[in-house]
Amino acid sequence: MTMSGVLRPGHCQLRVLDLEESVNFYTNVFGLVETGRDDTGRVYFKCHDERDHNSFIIRESDRAGMDFYGFKVRDKATLDRLESDLRAYGVSTERIPAGEMLETGERVRFEIPTGHIMELYAEKTAIGDGLGYVNPDVFIENRKGISPIRLDHWQIHGADLDGSRDLFINVLGFSLVEKILGEDGKTDMAVWLTCSTKAHDIAFVRDQRNNTVHHASFLLETWEKVLHAADIMGKYRVSIDNGPLRHGITRGTTIYSFDPSGNRLETFCGGYDFYPDMQPYTWTWDELGSAIFYHTRALNERFLTVVT
Amino acid sequence: MTMSGVLRPGHCQLRVLDLEESVNFYTNVFGLVETGRDDTGRVYFKCHDERDHNSFIIRESDRAGMDFYGFKVRDKATLDRLESDLRAYGVSTERIPAGEMLETGERVRFEIPTGHIMELYAEKTAIGDGLGYVNPDVFIENRKGISPIRLDHWQIHGADLDGSRDLFINVLGFSLVEKILGEDGKTDMAVWLTCSTKAHDIAFVRDQRNNTVHHASFLLETWEKVLHAADIMGKYRVSIDNGPLRHGITRGTTIYSFDPSGNRLETFCGGYDFYPDMQPYTWTWDELGSAIFYHTRALNERFLTVVT
Amino acid sequence: MTMSGVLRPGHCQLRVLDLEESVNFYTNVFGLVETGRDDTGRVYFKCHDERDHNSFIIRESDRAGMDFYGFKVRDKATLDRLESDLRAYGVSTERIPAGEMLETGERVRFEIPTGHIMELYAEKTAIGDGLGYVNPDVFIENRKGISPIRLDHWQIHGADLDGSRDLFINVLGFSLVEKILGEDGKTDMAVWLTCSTKAHDIAFVRDQRNNTVHHASFLLETWEKVLHAADIMGKYRVSIDNGPLRHGITRGTTIYSFDPSGNRLETFCGGYDFYPDMQPYTWTWDELGSAIFYHTRALNERFLTVVT
Amino acid sequence: MTMSGVLRPGHCQLRVLDLEESVNFYTNVFGLVETGRDDTGRVYFKCHDERDHNSFIIRESDRAGMDFYGFKVRDKATLDRLESDLRAYGVSTERIPAGEMLETGERVRFEIPTGHIMELYAEKTAIGDGLGYVNPDVFIENRKGISPIRLDHWQIHGADLDGSRDLFINVLGFSLVEKILGEDGKTDMAVWLTCSTKAHDIAFVRDQRNNTVHHASFLLETWEKVLHAADIMGKYRVSIDNGPLRHGITRGTTIYSFDPSGNRLETFCGGYDFYPDMQPYTWTWDELGSAIFYHTRALNERFLTVVT
Repeated sequence: MTMSGVLRPGHCQLRVLDLEESVNFYTNVFGLVETGRDDTGRVYFKCHDERDHNSFIIRESDRAGMDFYGFKVRDKATLDRLESDLRAYGVSTERIPAGEMLETGERVRFEIPTGHIMELYAEKTAIGDGLGYVNPDVFIENRKGISPIRLDHWQIHGADLDGSRDLFINVLGFSLVEKILGEDGKTDMAVWLTCSTKAHDIAFVRDQRNNTVHHASFLLETWEKVLHAADIMGKYRVSIDNGPLRHGITRGTTIYSFDPSGNRLETFCGGYDFYPDMQPYTWTWDELGSAIFYHTRALNERFLTVVT
Repeated sequence: MTMSGVLRPGHCQLRVLDLEESVNFYTNVFGLVETGRDDTGRVYFKCHDERDHNSFIIRESDRAGMDFYGFKVRDKATLDRLESDLRAYGVSTERIPAGEMLETGERVRFEIPTGHIMELYAEKTAIGDGLGYVNPDVFIENRKGISPIRLDHWQIHGADLDGSRDLFINVLGFSLVEKILGEDGKTDMAVWLTCSTKAHDIAFVRDQRNNTVHHASFLLETWEKVLHAADIMGKYRVSIDNGPLRHGITRGTTIYSFDPSGNRLETFCGGYDFYPDMQPYTWTWDELGSAIFYHTRALNERFLTVVT
Repeated sequence: MTMSGVLRPGHCQLRVLDLEESVNFYTNVFGLVETGRDDTGRVYFKCHDERDHNSFIIRESDRAGMDFYGFKVRDKATLDRLESDLRAYGVSTERIPAGEMLETGERVRFEIPTGHIMELYAEKTAIGDGLGYVNPDVFIENRKGISPIRLDHWQIHGADLDGSRDLFINVLGFSLVEKILGEDGKTDMAVWLTCSTKAHDIAFVRDQRNNTVHHASFLLETWEKVLHAADIMGKYRVSIDNGPLRHGITRGTTIYSFDPSGNRLETFCGGYDFYPDMQPYTWTWDELGSAIFYHTRALNERFLTVVT
Repeated sequence: MTMSGVLRPGHCQLRVLDLEESVNFYTNVFGLVETGRDDTGRVYFKCHDERDHNSFIIRESDRAGMDFYGFKVRDKATLDRLESDLRAYGVSTERIPAGEMLETGERVRFEIPTGHIMELYAEKTAIGDGLGYVNPDVFIENRKGISPIRLDHWQIHGADLDGSRDLFINVLGFSLVEKILGEDGKTDMAVWLTCSTKAHDIAFVRDQRNNTVHHASFLLETWEKVLHAADIMGKYRVSIDNGPLRHGITRGTTIYSFDPSGNRLETFCGGYDFYPDMQPYTWTWDELGSAIFYHTRALNERFLTVVT
């Protein structure tokens, strides 16, 4: 089996300040598909082109931010093996029973050195993308709003970047794709890691504020869809942090915006494919501007400082 | 390690009728980068955005077609393991010494049931894409001609499709992504397999003509680049088989054309990402037209019959 | 006034074999907006981004084809002047009273040497594009189907091409933009004319079948929209004549398809801007293939022979 | 003749601080074609897809800014008529002899109420776009840098906006396409005018600094080319003012950047077509943000204040 272990970012649970306002935003403006609500009040969404039941869950809270991040693994045997590997590495794990989240199997939950709650799971009900599995059409009609293809990755912040980076590489099998070095030329200030051929499945940034998230990122098909996303943000007065623009890191094109609760969302396209035989790219501190915002090479304060 | 085993299609060796005419075509019109010539007269090329020394090798011959197809594997231990697995599966293997191809390590060669010569290898010198590994730019200037991003996959034909399909799935760890069923509703007439998250790394078509190739396929960045490829084909009088168009299978957009020797080349963009937890798509025989040429649903005789 | 005289193709009336089937096609698949029906049974449409009440009118008939072609002129004084010029040129004209077509002023109708019925009019009620005239948004949401921007031009056929060409140039003030010469190197086999800076507002092809139409053409915003149009044609089993492809003439990218009655429609994008100080392009007979279908340089029989 | 009078912005003369640095910038980064130098030291450029000998002239000076703006008119009779109309309107005119600019006929020069020097001319040698006029290809190979299609328009500032607006509308035949009203709901703070079907051939902004220019604007083919322009600006460290983004006004997508002398350049794509029978769009002062930068609705100080 050539893809094994961890497959991809599969779900995350976001805190929002006003549930119905957020449901309206994520349905009609951001363009996700609501797939269910559970008796704890959580609302479940998936992207139009995702096949599993849910990838993005919101719950009402008095502060924004992310509760946890879940990766889908290849199968239950992989789940058991990775839990065992985590424990051997000295990480405490907890089993969340199947069904605690709608249409989702048992989850292995653990905290990583940067303070974030991570989960692994092997099972989530496939409900398809509406095209069926026999003679499918090539596109889904009547998609609303920005309508990203899929949940793609997260950028999360915490002090012990080295610890989380090593755990993802050594235990979960991720590869280092790019990194930004600090002024000392030695310290990793940010790293981009992949468990597939994507340029990133997760990114860590060194930051004293543990267990914080910079953004959840969603994939769009083309640069023209990035423009359409920006147009929709303009029309619906979505707060844009920056973009459309291109990153030096990953070469992706992107927009950063905020949901009504102040959670930052990325809607992006592109980026090269990475294979584990490739040498990572390194960015030096003096080229931080080009690394992040390739066009203007100018970082804005908000982008550098706001996390939830 | 989440990507293991076979990584990707890495190289292939093509027969051309006139070497210098072909070098001119592949350099100036198709837009590959010549990286070397060896003392047997072979000319080596890579795509601009590939980092390994070569991916496409041509040699002069009195008939067109492909000599062999090579997949890069994760490392030398993987190479040994896969050779062992092949032998255990009843496949004879041969070791081609390192250096037989320029800048390429030892290769394990074997014949598959459809009569094609396959190779696995773990080492090929990384020469990079010209951007360097520190503070890289996001694009390569002065690319010539069609200039695809990378060698992407092949579609090859032979009688014992079932045998080759099973070998790729059971021994090499590929996943079935899509298939076309015959009129009986049971027989696989064509299958698309992946060893990554690409919608296809190789495709097999049932055909009495063993060891034949329908096309070698190269990736372009965008649908606008597909148009530019077609414009270049128009200007340089490249023979186009079909396109620009979209496939039902994989959702990719594409052009099929012929090199000066009559070898069919695909230049394509797009296609969805496939993970091994996903259910394959099936196409029925009556929808063959939509499967192949989604827009017109009309197959042309040349596309169906010409192989080399 | 720098734009004066004839402004643009403004409306045409098409014959369809089954009215309701056609209304469904033009509304849900082709993506026009139905704006009214009159008591003669005609159904009126406009494109989403057009501001006048109607541009495309269909009526039920036992044969396909176009009844007449209307150009909007600058104002009523221009209408009077052009009628006078036509008569001075020896062309009989007829006045169709205001209101005979919904929301449309008085029309001056005349027959041109190729047998087609042409109309000029100065007034059609502006109903807008739905964005308003104060602080408009930049896009229209919830467009359905292919959803072209506007009616753009027609290609029409008849024997006395020279006569119609001269009338359009000498009386109506059009400019010659491109032409195809016959095998004799002298005869105009086809001409593209403009009354604006578009590469064509009308095209004439020399053909013994007088008063026939090759296609009505509609504008799309981008090459990506051309792809989307083709995808919709694939999904809804619209008969495609050719495309997506690029023309040598005008450089436009395009698809030709047929409505349910067999009327050919073009959905295209691009083309250069032409100013009347520019020298026209000439195509020679031996390059007819590149002129029409730049990529393949191969003309299909259906494209060359089917008119309605 | 339906296009008459003023055809288009045809040339302008820019002051730069260092001639050779600017020649390098405009040739290799901005991607214009140098077409000549005259004995006063001026360097002449055209865009790759323009057919006249020159459209953009630079001369060395100790301050940045624009010397004059030239519009090409239909023919010499038009030139005489417009000069006569200008004088009848009370505007002093001057004739600059043919040949004072390379390959350019006699020019009628005059000052408008906002203090800018305008020129009309009827003749400039057509040197073509390199494709020829017989069986042309559809694209120009080996374009360098950003490589815009054409000089498109200018935005210029001055106190007596009303005077310049009225002169352009009443004497030169331009149409009002869009305008921004001041806080009083009456005063035109900015107007966009066209002499063709472009959404703008010139824009005026009310500003106490007479005879200043906000930007010269150049057309790109697609939104993908806008991205490529931004990538080139990133690579060559061009100072970007804002973008890529979309305007509410005209719907165009754009980037604003500065040349090495601090002259602002726009590289843009898109915008709707305007015909003189259409009602102009009006923007109110409270929606100024959306009017200018539709996505973020946030104006930056530099964009609002820097002119040359």
